[in-house]
Amino acid sequence: MKALEERILKEGRAIGNDILKVDSFINHQLDIRFMEEIGKEMARLFSDVKVDKILTVEASGIAIASVAARYFDYPPVVFAKKSQPNTMNDDCYTAEAKSFTKGNMCVYRVSKTYIKKGENILIVDDFMASGEASVALAGIVESGGANVAGITSVIEKEYQGGSERLRKMGYLVRNLAVIKKIDSGVITFAEK
Amino acid sequence: MKALEERILKEGRAIGNDILKVDSFINHQLDIRFMEEIGKEMARLFSDVKVDKILTVEASGIAIASVAARYFDYPPVVFAKKSQPNTMNDDCYTAEAKSFTKGNMCVYRVSKTYIKKGENILIVDDFMASGEASVALAGIVESGGANVAGITSVIEKEYQGGSERLRKMGYLVRNLAVIKKIDSGVITFAEK
Repeated sequence: MKALEERILKEGRAIGNDILKVDSFINHQLDIRFMEEIGKEMARLFSDVKVDKILTVEASGIAIASVAARYFDYPPVVFAKKSQPNTMNDDCYTAEAKSFTKGNMCVYRVSKTYIKKGENILIVDDFMASGEASVALAGIVESGGANVAGITSVIEKEYQGGSERLRKMGYLVRNLAVIKKIDSGVITFAEK
Repeated sequence: MKALEERILKEGRAIGNDILKVDSFINHQLDIRFMEEIGKEMARLFSDVKVDKILTVEASGIAIASVAARYFDYPPVVFAKKSQPNTMNDDCYTAEAKSFTKGNMCVYRVSKTYIKKGENILIVDDFMASGEASVALAGIVESGGANVAGITSVIEKEYQGGSERLRKMGYLVRNLAVIKKIDSGVITFAEK
């Protein structure tokens, strides 16, 4: 998505070789008009796929999934809640994931009520790095007997291996901006 | 908002006298089409007020603020991040608030970059209980020299005193569904 790549180059702050901050329009302050363009593009990328529900994870994924839902004709949006490993998990599907930015383990929880057998669920997130979050969400989908319709993120850091890992697991992965490398603050996107 | 009251009565689960769970359409699973109606109503309630920015707090407020923004003609949406009291807070405005549902103290943080002097900022959240969260967000707005344009929530639990407290502080408070009491699971709305 050209406009997204341009915006990342203009406003993103690359820190070292791993961290990309997009706080001005995706992660802290949200540009909703721009998110609508992101949502439209996600819907276009998955126009050949049946999507009964969108699953994301708090907090940053919520805005993207909520704004995108309109372009998928309003499927329910569910967000996984993050909690410490010792939190009560009655009647929830859970999966552990390591936070890339914070380094700690956390548990993703989704009430069993909101994952139904046979549903086709699209996983949406802001970033795809090592794929930890997506693997956890996919595990929750499958625990409930539902299908992973696809996995999409706004920004993929390809060099961290997430999309390769998820494709090897058999998932359909389509991301909007794919970063090949960040080298001392310089961002290079993958060729289309 | 009549449709909201009806939906709360139909799908909300009142637990004891204090807790209301609306996980099926606001807090865990999100009905985006319905949230658009909520957003429209918020914009109608504040049509006489200048809104330059919307401020909310992760996680549940994000969906409401993101969907509502369209009806306010797309002001930037900023969400405060919650962290433990010992987290680094460089270059952030911070305020402490006690979580009603979790009981612990947490710190709300907003980067100084995203609150500008003189801006008129509308505070949006899912619930208003004792008003703790709104007081913290209003404090952040004012720390940055901006003005609180108003405070709105989807569901107010009036008997917990939040709106009275905030109005005494001089804020304009307009909520969508106002609950007068919850008594052994029975919800009573305030008269209009």
